[in-house]
This record gives sequence, C-alpha cells and structure tokens, in this order.
Amino acid sequence: MTDVAADRTYETLLWELSDDGILTLTLNRPEALNAFTVTMAAELEHAFRRVNGDDSVAAVVVTGSGRAFCAGMDLSREGNVFGLDESLSPTLADLRERLDSTEIADGVRDTGGRVALAIYDCTKPVIAAINGPAVGIGATMTLPMDVRLASTSARIGFVFGRLGIVPEACSSWFLPRLVGVSRALEWTYAAEILSPAEALDGGLVRSVVEPEALLDTAYELARRFVAGRSRVATALTRQMMWRNSAQPHPLDAHRVDSLAMWVTSIGDGKEGVAAFKEKRAPEFTSRAAHLPGWVPWD
Amino acid sequence: MTDVAADRTYETLLWELSDDGILTLTLNRPEALNAFTVTMAAELEHAFRRVNGDDSVAAVVVTGSGRAFCAGMDLSREGNVFGLDESLSPTLADLRERLDSTEIADGVRDTGGRVALAIYDCTKPVIAAINGPAVGIGATMTLPMDVRLASTSARIGFVFGRLGIVPEACSSWFLPRLVGVSRALEWTYAAEILSPAEALDGGLVRSVVEPEALLDTAYELARRFVAGRSRVATALTRQMMWRNSAQPHPLDAHRVDSLAMWVTSIGDGKEGVAAFKEKRAPEFTSRAAHLPGWVPWD
Amino acid sequence: MTDVAADRTYETLLWELSDDGILTLTLNRPEALNAFTVTMAAELEHAFRRVNGDDSVAAVVVTGSGRAFCAGMDLSREGNVFGLDESLSPTLADLRERLDSTEIADGVRDTGGRVALAIYDCTKPVIAAINGPAVGIGATMTLPMDVRLASTSARIGFVFGRLGIVPEACSSWFLPRLVGVSRALEWTYAAEILSPAEALDGGLVRSVVEPEALLDTAYELARRFVAGRSRVATALTRQMMWRNSAQPHPLDAHRVDSLAMWVTSIGDGKEGVAAFKEKRAPEFTSRAAHLPGWVPWD
Repeated sequence: MTDVAADRTYETLLWELSDDGILTLTLNRPEALNAFTVTMAAELEHAFRRVNGDDSVAAVVVTGSGRAFCAGMDLSREGNVFGLDESLSPTLADLRERLDSTEIADGVRDTGGRVALAIYDCTKPVIAAINGPAVGIGATMTLPMDVRLASTSARIGFVFGRLGIVPEACSSWFLPRLVGVSRALEWTYAAEILSPAEALDGGLVRSVVEPEALLDTAYELARRFVAGRSRVATALTRQMMWRNSAQPHPLDAHRVDSLAMWVTSIGDGKEGVAAFKEKRAPEFTSRAAHLPGWVPWD
Repeated sequence: MTDVAADRTYETLLWELSDDGILTLTLNRPEALNAFTVTMAAELEHAFRRVNGDDSVAAVVVTGSGRAFCAGMDLSREGNVFGLDESLSPTLADLRERLDSTEIADGVRDTGGRVALAIYDCTKPVIAAINGPAVGIGATMTLPMDVRLASTSARIGFVFGRLGIVPEACSSWFLPRLVGVSRALEWTYAAEILSPAEALDGGLVRSVVEPEALLDTAYELARRFVAGRSRVATALTRQMMWRNSAQPHPLDAHRVDSLAMWVTSIGDGKEGVAAFKEKRAPEFTSRAAHLPGWVPWD
Repeated sequence: MTDVAADRTYETLLWELSDDGILTLTLNRPEALNAFTVTMAAELEHAFRRVNGDDSVAAVVVTGSGRAFCAGMDLSREGNVFGLDESLSPTLADLRERLDSTEIADGVRDTGGRVALAIYDCTKPVIAAINGPAVGIGATMTLPMDVRLASTSARIGFVFGRLGIVPEACSSWFLPRLVGVSRALEWTYAAEILSPAEALDGGLVRSVVEPEALLDTAYELARRFVAGRSRVATALTRQMMWRNSAQPHPLDAHRVDSLAMWVTSIGDGKEGVAAFKEKRAPEFTSRAAHLPGWVPWD
C-alpha cells in the first residue's frame, strides 16, 4: 500500500476512535450481514496499515454492524466469485517470485490472506469482538487478531469444505497455532458451525459474554493492554511474540530480544525504571509510528 | 515406493473398504499384540501411499486386531532388534545427503519414522481408533494421524526410556505439537503408561468411548469429514494444515492458500457456490489422486 | 564459556547435589528477593554448562532462597540498569555476524537470553520449583525449563510493559509455545501478576502445591525422570523434543531420530532390550557428558 491516507473514509468500514486511543473498526454492510467483498478486503488492508502510522491509535477492536460479524465471502459477484483470474495458470514460483506483480496480486493472491498479513503486521493490540455469525473469511480474518471475544450470539464456522474450497487467509498457519492441528483439521473437515461454548472449549475465543456486554468487555481489555504502556515496547512485543515464536531456534528470538531491550533501555525504559524507583506512574513518550529500522525483521 | 499396487494383500495388515469409502486398516498380528516388525513398517508405508492413489478411499481408520492396538516393536528379532546396521558409522550428513541410498535407507533410517512420514503425506483424513495397549511405536505411529479416539481399554505409553532408547517415528516433532513440549518431555522422561483419562486430559486423544462403540464413533467421524465434501479440497486442507502451520511465516501459507483457492475456485468451488445459491446439496467430482503439480510444496 | 570449572563456588547461587544425582540450584540473594544481576546471569550460564559436563548430575531443580523465587532484574545498578552499552548503535546484522564479539556479547546481548539459551542447551531434565514471586526475568528464566511447579505462594509476572521495556530471555519464543500466542500476548500486554491458579489454568505450570511440599514434589518428579534411565537417551530426548519440534518439517526430526535410535540401539538399548526380555531392571552405563558429535544439530 503506497497510499495510506489518514483521513480516508471507507465504503465498507466504520473507523471510530475514542479519546483514549481505542479504535473501533466496524465491518459495515449490515444489509448483507457484512459479507466480505474485494472492496472490504482492500479497505481492511488499508485500515490496518493506516493504524500503524497513526499515533493516535493505541489499540484496535474489530466488530460487525448489526446482527452479524461477517457472513463470509459475498457470493453474488459475476464470474469468479473469489475475484480470481481464471485465464492464468499460476505456479508456486509465481507466488514466490512476483507476488506483488499486478497479474498475481490482482488475479491470484487470496484476498483474505492479504488482510490477514496486514493484521499480522499490525503494531497495536488487536481484539476481535465477535458479535454474531462469523463464517468463512468472517472466521479466518479473526485468527491473526491477538484475542477473540465472543458474544453468546456468535456462531463461528470454518465452512469452506461445504463450498468445495479450502480454508484461506493464512488460516492453515494461524488456526493450528491457536487450537492445535488436530482440532483445526476436525473443524475444517467437518465444516460445521461452532457454538460459543465449543469455540471457548477449543481455545479459539478467550471468553464469552452477553451481547450487550461485548464491546465494553473488549474496550476494558484494550485499556488494560495500553493504558500507561510504552507504545514502542507494546509494538515490539506484538511483533516479537508472533514472529519469533515461529522461528526454528530461540537464538532467532535472542537476536531480536537483544536489540529490542537495547532500544527500549535507552528509550521508555529509562522513564519506566525511574518511575518504578520513585514509586510513581511512568510517563512514556515513544511513538509506535517510528519503530527501529530493523522492524519487521523477517 | 515405486510399486504401489492397488490389489496387494498384506501379511500384517487388513485392508477393508466400505461402500462409502471408509478404509479400515487393521494392524493384524493379534497373536503378538500386533507388535511392530520391519514387514509391518513396509506394509504400512505401502498402504498409506496406496491410499493416496486410490480414489475409492475417502478416509482411513486405523485400529488393532484383538485386544491390543500395537504393543510396540517386536523385540524377538535376532541381532539388532531395531533392524539397524551396526557396522556403519552414520553421520547427520549421511541422512541429509543420501537418505534414500540403500545403505542408509535399510541400515540407518528409523522404520517408525518412515511410516510416520507416509502418514504425514496422506491426502485423506486419518483417524486412529486406539482399542487397547498402544506402546512405543504403537503410540508414536498415531501422532501423525489427524484425530485419536481411545476406548476405555486403551493404554498409551511412550516407554522408550525404559529400554534405554529415544522416542522415534518423528515423535519429537509431532508430540510437542499435540500436547506441548512440557508434557511431551514429562511423558517421555517418565516413560509410564497413560490411562485414557490422562491422554484425554493432555489433549492427546479427542475422546474416550466404550470399547464396543469405538469403531462406530470413528466411522461416524470419518463420514462427517468426507460425506458431501470435495476430495481435492479435503486433500489440500490436510496438507495445508500440517505443512503450513510449521513454516516460519504466514506468507508461506499465503502462497499456498492462493494457489489452492485458485485451483478449487475453478474446480469443485464452482459447483459448491452454485449449489449454495440454489439451496441444494453439491455434487463434487474432483479426484484426490490427481492433485496439482505443486503438491507437496516443501 | 571456556572455563567450566567443576568445583567453582558462586556468589549468587547454591549448588547442592544429592546422592541420587538431583542438583538443587538455588538463586541465593535472599536479602534482595534473589534479584537478577549480571553476575547471577554469568553464574547461571556457567552452572548450566557445567551440568552438561558433570556426570554426577542427573537432573536439575531450580528454586529461590527465602520467600522469593526471583524478583526480577536488580534495578539498583548505576548507568544502564540492564548492563547495555548505550554508546553503540547495534543492528540485526551485528547480532547475526558477531554475536560473540566482546562488544556485542558484553554491550548488546540480553543477559536473560544468554541464560535461557544455556538452559535450552542443557542435557539433563530441568524443573523449576517456583516458591514465591517470580517477576520479569524471574518469570522468563523458567520458560526454557522442562516443567514448572508452583507453590501456593508463587506470583508470576511478565511485567516488562510496566517498565517500558519488552519481554526478554527469548520469552517471545518460549512463552507462546507453552501457553499459546494469544495468552502470551494478553499476559505481556497486561503485565499483571498471575496467581498460581491463573498460571495453572493457562498451562504455564504443571501443578500447584503447598509451600512445604514444593521441593519434595520437585524431587519426586526428578527421580521419576531419571531413576533407572539411560543418561544418553534422556539427554537426546530433551534435545530432540525442544529442537525438532520447532523445525519446519518432520523429516528434520526423522534424520535425528534415526541417528539417535542407531546410537542408542548399539548402546544402552542393548541392555534395555536384554533386561526387558529377562524381566529384570536394566543397568544403563552411558554418560551424558559424552554425546555423539552431531549433538547439538542446529
């Protein structure tokens, strides 16, 4: 994304920022149960990249407008409903060598995966507030978010198998990390709709609350994550946890840990240690829009 | 395996295929509690590679004949009981550079690992129905299967430590993925026999049922996994979940996701979307014996 | 570490070895709640490397002296409290290319990470007996240990965020492996103190016991792990579980499995099989100070 305008308005999303820096990003096609379109994909990708550059945003809560979270891909499109170019014969080499070429980017790359990667790259905590049906891409788009909260109205379905397609949006990477490979396979093979209790039991969601308490629970959690925290330390922590844990050796983490400790030890860490010694609340001043040049590191 | 004959009979296995495509593969040396031999290893490796090429097989259930699942390596063999060539001095470079040379393949490669890798490569859902003692390789061979069901008669033991040997069959890769590294270490250090309740509590098995209900539970689950499903989408889903989740970056998944979505969007996905819109059951026609050329992708 | 003297005494640690080979390593600055210093880091790194070369040690239990386990980094130091050289401008290339140069090793490398890597490399089972507050590095240093036991007095806090710094000691690699990335992020974002019940519920600790039972529980577990076990098989098992499970493909495990089975099949495995057949206890004789040359393998 070259154009990440800070004042852009969206067709399919609401961007609402509270005074304390909690951004509510609402999937906003309630007449279509917030079904996912190529426009929504591009707007989500834009919004998450914009979050990284906007120091007024401390954390993100994602929810849906009306009674659904997201009912999955909008299947009403003419031609290839997934927006893929059927005239191509793409190979793995194409995806490796020219992922961002127009042909591959527009005709082959999974749009859900583009969104998932933008969320993965986010430098602020991201909480999913699943307020109703979250099906297909509506389910998989929540996986790169840090925490999933479900209302008792949530219904989560990895239903790709019913349509003769595969789970997408990098969910084969994210879902086994969250619920284990055995449950990930059972859920995607069976392609059934999970109740909130099943999602909770499987470790997919952190907690289940009444519908009217969902957003407040999300906001309370978001504030616990960011109030009185260093923006740079939080950004580095998010990227370290997601990226380092997937590396083949703890030495990979050690190299980044060392740089991140060094950077924060001469930054907000000085204030943090001083405040701790003086038994007062720290006043951190760093800005996550300006991370060290080695971020991201892979 | 160059010869994957579709009509082969086995000395140590029963191959029984139901009308609805559920293959029951039975470890069949009941007089020896189905103890594992080099012949059984070769036959299991053959059978799992045969499954991939046989479109009449939709899913696999593995169980044991008689009262045991598999009592572990048959230790009655003369000489090196594990079938290894003691005259060699193998190095890691040998395993990296000439894994399939006769010397290394026959004299050094762990036979359990050869079976585990064949199961890992399987393109159909695989369910373990653990009907009794599953010890040593009898336990580790179930780890690359997608779901483990245990009867109340199951007893599972990673008992290698008692024999002065190490856990094998790639179990150091699979077991921590299924139950976490801390529990994997405790179970292998202690080398004790786990009750079904302990295996369930640790997340090793999905559920525990009465012995007389075990196979029916497995068949019911297998049917939920494959009835009305696209064979190609199911095959890709299995390989994506196992392979992509172990890669260092979600971008690795995104490349494969994109190709898999592209392929299924011009295949069974068309029928799936049409059937969904027409509110009827889909009629998928793809065959998993003919997967795209980029499978497997690592 | 070039000098790993077997008779060294430590300023900050107690080294107490039982007749049955259980080493108790006690963080011993009780007047400072065992707060972590650069000296303690160097001594822990030394002690864990010494363990590997000392055949009289079969397993390690780590605990704290007095009422705390470890209250975190000692913040009383002058200048950079983390011991880092603020005059440098380190890059990721520096950490990749000259990690062990004096400048990087002393001025940039995270001291907690050096300890974590030494524990990761340990060839004996390691059990944390968390007897009281374990905060900051006091919490993260336990993550590369195999099993964590907590007393009801334990309080565990990944509190880095309160100080404006990041979680260190390779914890971005270890913590998501133990409790999942979602919980790891919640715990580090919120930076709160966990009760033993919360740590148990999250899978961070294996069990919670009364304070007076903590060490006995740890010793009992350690004995179950090593009594009657092959030292070489145990050492290989520990390294295989930690290292292989993080590799991208089970084939990586298969290569090591094969070598480890081959080595133990001509070593303690012969005695193990013979004893099993003769229905007697095995007498293993291998020594973990002399592992095959291919260890460690990455």
